Amino acid sequence: MELSLLAPIGSVLALLFAVYLARRVLKADCGSERMRKISGSVQKGASAYLRRQYTGVAIFFAVLFAILLTMSIAGFLTPFVPFAFITGGFFSGLSGFIGMKIATAANGRTAHAASGSLNAGLRVAFSAGAVMGFVVVGLGLFDISFWFFFLKFWYANPDHLVVAAGQTFENAQIQSITSAMLTFGMGASSMALFARVGGGIFTKAADVGADLVGKIEVGIPEDDPRNPAVIADNVGDNVGDVAGMGADLYESYVGSIISTGALAVAAGMGFRGVIIPMAMAAIGIIASILGTFFVRTKEGASQKNLLSALRRGVWISSALIAVVAYPLIYFGLGAEYTGLYFAVICGLAAGILIGLITEYFTSDSYRPTKKLAGTSETGPATVMIGGLSLGMLSTVLPVLIVGIAVLVSYYISGGGTQFNMGLYGIGLSAVGMLSTLGITLATDAYGPVADNAGGIAEMAHMPPEVRERTDALDSLGNTTAATGKGFAIGSAALTALALIASYIAQIKVYQPDFVFDLSITNPTVLVGLFVGGVLPFLFAALTMESVGKVAQSIVVEVRRQFREIKGLMAGESDPDYARCVDICTRSAQREMILPALLAVIAPILVGLLLGVNGVAGMLAGATVSGFILAVMMANAGGAWDNAKKYIEGGAHGGKGSDAHKAAVVGDTVGDPFKDTSGPSINILIKLLSMVSIVFAGLVIRFSLF
Amino acid sequence: MELSLLAPIGSVLALLFAVYLARRVLKADCGSERMRKISGSVQKGASAYLRRQYTGVAIFFAVLFAILLTMSIAGFLTPFVPFAFITGGFFSGLSGFIGMKIATAANGRTAHAASGSLNAGLRVAFSAGAVMGFVVVGLGLFDISFWFFFLKFWYANPDHLVVAAGQTFENAQIQSITSAMLTFGMGASSMALFARVGGGIFTKAADVGADLVGKIEVGIPEDDPRNPAVIADNVGDNVGDVAGMGADLYESYVGSIISTGALAVAAGMGFRGVIIPMAMAAIGIIASILGTFFVRTKEGASQKNLLSALRRGVWISSALIAVVAYPLIYFGLGAEYTGLYFAVICGLAAGILIGLITEYFTSDSYRPTKKLAGTSETGPATVMIGGLSLGMLSTVLPVLIVGIAVLVSYYISGGGTQFNMGLYGIGLSAVGMLSTLGITLATDAYGPVADNAGGIAEMAHMPPEVRERTDALDSLGNTTAATGKGFAIGSAALTALALIASYIAQIKVYQPDFVFDLSITNPTVLVGLFVGGVLPFLFAALTMESVGKVAQSIVVEVRRQFREIKGLMAGESDPDYARCVDICTRSAQREMILPALLAVIAPILVGLLLGVNGVAGMLAGATVSGFILAVMMANAGGAWDNAKKYIEGGAHGGKGSDAHKAAVVGDTVGDPFKDTSGPSINILIKLLSMVSIVFAGLVIRFSLF
Repeated sequence: MELSLLAPIGSVLALLFAVYLARRVLKADCGSERMRKISGSVQKGASAYLRRQYTGVAIFFAVLFAILLTMSIAGFLTPFVPFAFITGGFFSGLSGFIGMKIATAANGRTAHAASGSLNAGLRVAFSAGAVMGFVVVGLGLFDISFWFFFLKFWYANPDHLVVAAGQTFENAQIQSITSAMLTFGMGASSMALFARVGGGIFTKAADVGADLVGKIEVGIPEDDPRNPAVIADNVGDNVGDVAGMGADLYESYVGSIISTGALAVAAGMGFRGVIIPMAMAAIGIIASILGTFFVRTKEGASQKNLLSALRRGVWISSALIAVVAYPLIYFGLGAEYTGLYFAVICGLAAGILIGLITEYFTSDSYRPTKKLAGTSETGPATVMIGGLSLGMLSTVLPVLIVGIAVLVSYYISGGGTQFNMGLYGIGLSAVGMLSTLGITLATDAYGPVADNAGGIAEMAHMPPEVRERTDALDSLGNTTAATGKGFAIGSAALTALALIASYIAQIKVYQPDFVFDLSITNPTVLVGLFVGGVLPFLFAALTMESVGKVAQSIVVEVRRQFREIKGLMAGESDPDYARCVDICTRSAQREMILPALLAVIAPILVGLLLGVNGVAGMLAGATVSGFILAVMMANAGGAWDNAKKYIEGGAHGGKGSDAHKAAVVGDTVGDPFKDTSGPSINILIKLLSMVSIVFAGLVIRFSLF
Repeated sequence: MELSLLAPIGSVLALLFAVYLARRVLKADCGSERMRKISGSVQKGASAYLRRQYTGVAIFFAVLFAILLTMSIAGFLTPFVPFAFITGGFFSGLSGFIGMKIATAANGRTAHAASGSLNAGLRVAFSAGAVMGFVVVGLGLFDISFWFFFLKFWYANPDHLVVAAGQTFENAQIQSITSAMLTFGMGASSMALFARVGGGIFTKAADVGADLVGKIEVGIPEDDPRNPAVIADNVGDNVGDVAGMGADLYESYVGSIISTGALAVAAGMGFRGVIIPMAMAAIGIIASILGTFFVRTKEGASQKNLLSALRRGVWISSALIAVVAYPLIYFGLGAEYTGLYFAVICGLAAGILIGLITEYFTSDSYRPTKKLAGTSETGPATVMIGGLSLGMLSTVLPVLIVGIAVLVSYYISGGGTQFNMGLYGIGLSAVGMLSTLGITLATDAYGPVADNAGGIAEMAHMPPEVRERTDALDSLGNTTAATGKGFAIGSAALTALALIASYIAQIKVYQPDFVFDLSITNPTVLVGLFVGGVLPFLFAALTMESVGKVAQSIVVEVRRQFREIKGLMAGESDPDYARCVDICTRSAQREMILPALLAVIAPILVGLLLGVNGVAGMLAGATVSGFILAVMMANAGGAWDNAKKYIEGGAHGGKGSDAHKAAVVGDTVGDPFKDTSGPSINILIKLLSMVSIVFAGLVIRFSLF
């Protein structure tokens, strides 16, 4: 039983390590007065946005809390469910908030450090990224541990527990615990969706708006202080790419652990089945902490050295996990469960492979992105066609890898003879994939910090070599971000599959004699598949349209300022930065409502109209099409971005050439692809499952079929 | 039994009507010497292309014929299968060929007639389109009837038939007939895929290449005779939009009839189950012929009048079918089968609704396309984002309509108590949807004729009002083409579902005791869903990349000619048209191989690796994601095209403005979307099913799972 203590220990270690890193970041010098002022505006804008966002989201949470409370009073849910929901949302938001705080504190410091050396800049930016990484995993595992121990203690009292006929006391206990934990996951996913969608709309609208007028119409460089949208753009990096990503990966992380734990009863593993994924996560945290110590470079390192420095950390952590997971499972569960070890390895390996493939398709060191850069010679249309087909093509291997991971982890865990054991193995492979999250997120989250540092260097008129250094860090960040997205999407697919299994298990709790017909020839399943398949498309359409709409209002505003503010172009007067921040804030708030409602309402509506089988079909359809669409959008976006950077590096005529202009169009389209719609789809597919699970009792009672 | 005679009667009527219309077209005046010369070059180029394409495809058919013959000798298939396969391919190709012949004969004649009046132009163009429409349905039903009667006669002899234990003689007979007919369908689908992909690559590469240099770089109008790619562009309209579409819809048409017939045994309907869809199709033909007589306009009709003239024909045909189908089913099958009547109506209504939604999203009379045109004010990036999100958004309602059609036709046909009867109803609703094909295809296929006529008018320096009239016809053709694509895609989804059911039925023929586990929680089904889901994306990626690649080589060639041929820009010397045609021809041939192989190899490979359940999953996954992707691509492409035309009509600064340039980028991206990748996906999802069915015997014997 002492295995269960690993999780709280791991979480505390992660949080302590985060505090240590944060202190290191804050000790660094903030730079000149002007840098402090700019950094301060970004900080202020980001805080203002998040405050507003959390206020808006609070209403949503209040409404859902009331609904869940009513359902729990009516006996559809256990009493802790509404509270678990709230805490999930709170901690997911908190992860993003802390990440944003440290990122905005680190941006100026990174710029200042980079004026010393590339390595110094990397150290500050990477530390800031690592704070976020360890806050996410630390808080995630902390909350899971809290609910686990608290509910275990509570339900140890037979008076608190309803034991169904034919059910053991232990299983009833686990079921009550895991179903509350799933609602906690639903809270985290809801918050993540708001953060990703709202933040994503903010950041990309500001970015697109700033670039469309600044770079293309007026012809001033990126991050030029004369551009009225430049502060909004930098705020966006923090609220979207940092706070949004933090909430997103918090959700992925706890989702994978919870969904696996929820299969423990069905797989016949008892409490150990809940504890193992938590313990795996704890091992991953310790391995990640150790891994960070290997991320360092010699002075004067090339970009390639930098990448291998970052990668070394991830590889060492993965290797440590691969070694330690074996005794964990062998001694923790027994020799007959070693198949589960291979499921973990399978997930770990699949994550790394998907990351490498993502890198192949999106890094300008390889053929696809180079070829894409070449299409810019014939104008924006061929850039678009090239990027879209690159994105589509890049989905094939990840699908095959996930497919192989599913089959291997299913059969190696014993799914051939014991169905639910196989599903448990699939869940565990998602946990394995995300076990290195502490360090992969660190290598990912430092990107926006470096990006911001570059902006500050530009606006503070620092010497050009500083900008060059932050650009090197940023461009590297693009590659690591793409890899990170690959992880997030791959694990989302596996987690979603585990959640579908949990959904079915949950239905059996409500109605043990329910006869499932999940065959794809059952028309309700089939229609469910279609409806689920279309949801990610609808979601992507809504979010992209929002970005377009908000970007257009920013364009109008920026044009107005250039027209009306005298001396702006000459650099004699300051633009009204705050107005652009304000427009983005208000619009992002408004635009995030519909997509979020969609995720909550669709599963309930489908449940009522098509019944349980239809919901299962919908979840499978959404997982399949969502996974593919998310990979496509993320990779197309990443490749466009890097193709543009490749041209800016001098290829095909370099900056200012027609080819560059065409590539900028690609990058602009890629922005909402890779930073708004694509990553939100991950969250969507899990949120759909969690909502289905939480409202399963309602659906089974009132559905048409 | 006399019901079975309806099909041959209908097919002969259609063919006779086509001959009558063709004579009417050919009687029209060909116009001036110059027009004849231009029309002649287009004709020559198109014939040269098709000759080459058929030669290439012949190799593919020869190889597959050999494989099928070997399999049939080895006892995996009945002896007629290889021959049925060949005839399917032959007649599908023939439909396209005849369509192309009449279209190239009609283009100059339409231009000449349009110099008299709009109505005269419409009459010639519409008659040419109708020839194609009735050739497609006539040949389709002819072949089906031929194989049906021939095989019925052959298998009436007990020596020719193997009757399995527990099977009635009649069922054994029907099974042998329908399995040969399915292979006939596979031949048609293979040919259609080649025609759509090859023709689609040709036409869009030529179009994109001509526009990129001509319109954007050199600044000469569309169809300017100085553009070296202008003849290739016009040839492309004929080999892609006409011959490709003919083969495509031939495939859809026979596919829906055959796949429904193949479910007759499982549904326990005997021979009547095979005959009813054939008879329905025959009724549709007669109704379509009558409908064409209502397509006429008064002189001086507006574009709106023209559209309602065309639409009147379709509506009247639909109404006739709705009336006559009732007695057909009531007296042909009996009162207990009236549910099937409503399935037909359901399909008919779904087709019309999908058409209307397609029109809403793609016509510049409605908000979405107008809004899309507005995004061009902020440059090509926002046009791209707007079009992609419009396309994604437009998938939602068609998915819901197909979903409702599936559920209603399933349950109303008695699926609630008799599963296979419900599936039969789904198949019959696809037949209902396509029953008006004769006339809908006529309203669709006249578009490219008008487009070509416009090109000829431009090149022959005819007075501007001629071009205005052909433009009016062409723009209308865009709307009807979009509607036609909606039909083709909608029916593809329903047909594909019927084919999945046929696949399962076929497996039971080979191994009656096979235990299916088609549950979406079965990992092989799940992985199949993923693999199937990614296939349309891979397919779209390959075809789009091909268009991009070939277009780039055309751009290089056109640029070279403008550079090297002295006096070309001044109109003093002629460009080398033939070279562009030749480049397109050779490249399209090369590029169509890989996508076609994919469609044939994927189901066999998945079958061998994942087994029967995996194949079923793959088919469902491909149907869902393919349907959504096809709708998205077709509608985004249509909307971009019409947004551009809307701007050319004077909005947002009109022709030559920056907004127009941005819209041209959208249109250029939309070209391969709507005319290459999108429509090919329809064929892909059915071809996957048919290949699975034909190779079912092999898969079940040698698969891993």
